[in-house]
Amino acid sequence: MSRPDAHNCWNARMSEELIQVYEELETYSHVRAIVLTGDPAGKCFCAGADLNQHNFSTRAQNLNISETESRDRGGQVALPIQRSRKITIAAINGNAAGIGITMTLPMDLRFAWKDAKIAFPFVRRGIVPEATSTYHLPLLIGRSRAMAVLLQGAPIPASSPLLNGLFTKLLDTTESVLPYALEIAHELSTRTSPTSIAFTKALVLNAKPTAEEQHILDSRAMFVTGNGDAKEGVRSYLEKRPPRFDDYDTRALPDWLKAKI
Amino acid sequence: MSRPDAHNCWNARMSEELIQVYEELETYSHVRAIVLTGDPAGKCFCAGADLNQHNFSTRAQNLNISETESRDRGGQVALPIQRSRKITIAAINGNAAGIGITMTLPMDLRFAWKDAKIAFPFVRRGIVPEATSTYHLPLLIGRSRAMAVLLQGAPIPASSPLLNGLFTKLLDTTESVLPYALEIAHELSTRTSPTSIAFTKALVLNAKPTAEEQHILDSRAMFVTGNGDAKEGVRSYLEKRPPRFDDYDTRALPDWLKAKI
Amino acid sequence: MSRPDAHNCWNARMSEELIQVYEELETYSHVRAIVLTGDPAGKCFCAGADLNQHNFSTRAQNLNISETESRDRGGQVALPIQRSRKITIAAINGNAAGIGITMTLPMDLRFAWKDAKIAFPFVRRGIVPEATSTYHLPLLIGRSRAMAVLLQGAPIPASSPLLNGLFTKLLDTTESVLPYALEIAHELSTRTSPTSIAFTKALVLNAKPTAEEQHILDSRAMFVTGNGDAKEGVRSYLEKRPPRFDDYDTRALPDWLKAKI
Repeated sequence: MSRPDAHNCWNARMSEELIQVYEELETYSHVRAIVLTGDPAGKCFCAGADLNQHNFSTRAQNLNISETESRDRGGQVALPIQRSRKITIAAINGNAAGIGITMTLPMDLRFAWKDAKIAFPFVRRGIVPEATSTYHLPLLIGRSRAMAVLLQGAPIPASSPLLNGLFTKLLDTTESVLPYALEIAHELSTRTSPTSIAFTKALVLNAKPTAEEQHILDSRAMFVTGNGDAKEGVRSYLEKRPPRFDDYDTRALPDWLKAKI
Repeated sequence: MSRPDAHNCWNARMSEELIQVYEELETYSHVRAIVLTGDPAGKCFCAGADLNQHNFSTRAQNLNISETESRDRGGQVALPIQRSRKITIAAINGNAAGIGITMTLPMDLRFAWKDAKIAFPFVRRGIVPEATSTYHLPLLIGRSRAMAVLLQGAPIPASSPLLNGLFTKLLDTTESVLPYALEIAHELSTRTSPTSIAFTKALVLNAKPTAEEQHILDSRAMFVTGNGDAKEGVRSYLEKRPPRFDDYDTRALPDWLKAKI
Repeated sequence: MSRPDAHNCWNARMSEELIQVYEELETYSHVRAIVLTGDPAGKCFCAGADLNQHNFSTRAQNLNISETESRDRGGQVALPIQRSRKITIAAINGNAAGIGITMTLPMDLRFAWKDAKIAFPFVRRGIVPEATSTYHLPLLIGRSRAMAVLLQGAPIPASSPLLNGLFTKLLDTTESVLPYALEIAHELSTRTSPTSIAFTKALVLNAKPTAEEQHILDSRAMFVTGNGDAKEGVRSYLEKRPPRFDDYDTRALPDWLKAKI
């Protein structure tokens, strides 16, 4: 995200471009991992929605708004990110506020500068947490921490105990976040099976209500992968060499494995 | 809770008064936060149900008890607390056992003295965890910690790793718990929008099974609040002054946002 | 698990024996806790499936595999463990990889040597996490940590922040894990009610979608136990002596409490 003059703030154009990027990258089999970061010149990861460009409607409050009348822009970006079966990574190299942090919640891995200020300021701005963050945050770190963070709304450092578990790893300096994220992206891209990643993400995100149903689901996934990349995975392991896995078109996920998102 | 001669133990009268208090406070728009604490003279937050007053029935064990035959008193208190759309806070200024701790699980924020002994002793008393605690605890801190705490049943300090995440903040002394809780209650009451708090709580507690359904829900909530308190929230932020939000009658939550509790 | 020449690796025979053991122990009322550990001579808790004995099929990849065509062996073991209403304990006294760690996820308590290497290597072997681990791990420690662990697939020490919350207690030496696990097993076997344990496990594992439904469920469970072991539980507590609870046949759980697993 690069809007250096505006703390990499999010605006309508950025949201449209993000949707386009995540949807387009999904169509390339050779793309393994997608890393999102903030332009260092912006001195932030992303300072949130650009309030100067935000026109809150002046229409009278209407509690009877229908399900289709309005769609939150943040969620319009969060959903394609969650639908991605690539390895999705946030390299949070500076402060992240509002949509700047909520858009990273559907991602798989979040690397952050330990002193980055993280804010979910919605209740202090008279609005609500967006981008499906009220869905994701309790699942990610438990409802106790999630409720405290969402209701208090004050900026806290990434290293705060209230965010414990949210970040895959905290880095000591802002400069080291992106290189570390890229290193992990590279390692996973060369060491993991694209099919395994896509299937595993679908299994986690589409978890069934009971273990027995999940057993039926993971049995089918194990059967398919066991007849596919498993041979190279096991052989390369026994031969102590890097694996060479087949590419995988994540759009070809079998119907029974497609997560309802 | 003030029963200083009985370690602030819970009895039938206390449960009835708690139900009444939480239900009544919900009707006042100007009430923003509700802090529950223990009378310091009781030397505890709440030592649990008063076993001297507890008459376990001597009827023969009946596995065929119907759904309506009996209702656990603890749950009768926990449900109105969970239904509250105010900011609900526990100031756990001393030991909390049994219902003394389970009744705080539906609350939003829990502040505790770091050396308070916390006990879920049910399996050691021949009964089961009550007050919907088997529902809440796994959601709050994950099923791994929850299962260990509920099955072991021994008292552990609030700072135990097994309770990691349960308390919003641990305080060094018992005397500092209530002042800190009141400070947070005051800050949130003056800095957050009552509508935003009520809506955010409903979004978290009524989370939908999929992110897309949550997106539809939070889009509607964002539309309503974006046409309401958002204007003052954004303006006060840009003007760097405290906000002046409208009161909100939490009972007026739109039907589509009402949490099924 | 004792296959000292093969790092206690899991094979078909071991899986059959494990199923048999957990199913058979469930039929004995006097069995209270089941502790699984690795033969110290194997230098591991369990190094995973024995790849030398694993014949991944060479059949062409078939995305249309039906629900009944194949069942993952790991899940066939995980399900009886989860169905157990005894206190199920893992004494992880050395490295645990693949099924060596996933089979412990449905257990109640996990004690581990702090330096044990824990690996969920599936995505690096071209397969998927099995044994319903994609169901359990996010529930146990939250989806943020679970996704990071499952997608990265590299071995990490049991003390890694990424596994925070998974282990009930970490022990300093491999030799101290089993004695500690047995000490806890003994303490819980003599201090807790068998009925309370079975009911509490069922309440947690069969949690209802809403707190009010859980309230109806735990009210019934409290009524039954309140008319049963509660009397001895409360009396022994007031008399400051160990309780003497009745045995309980976990297969006699009332239908309304039986967890759908």
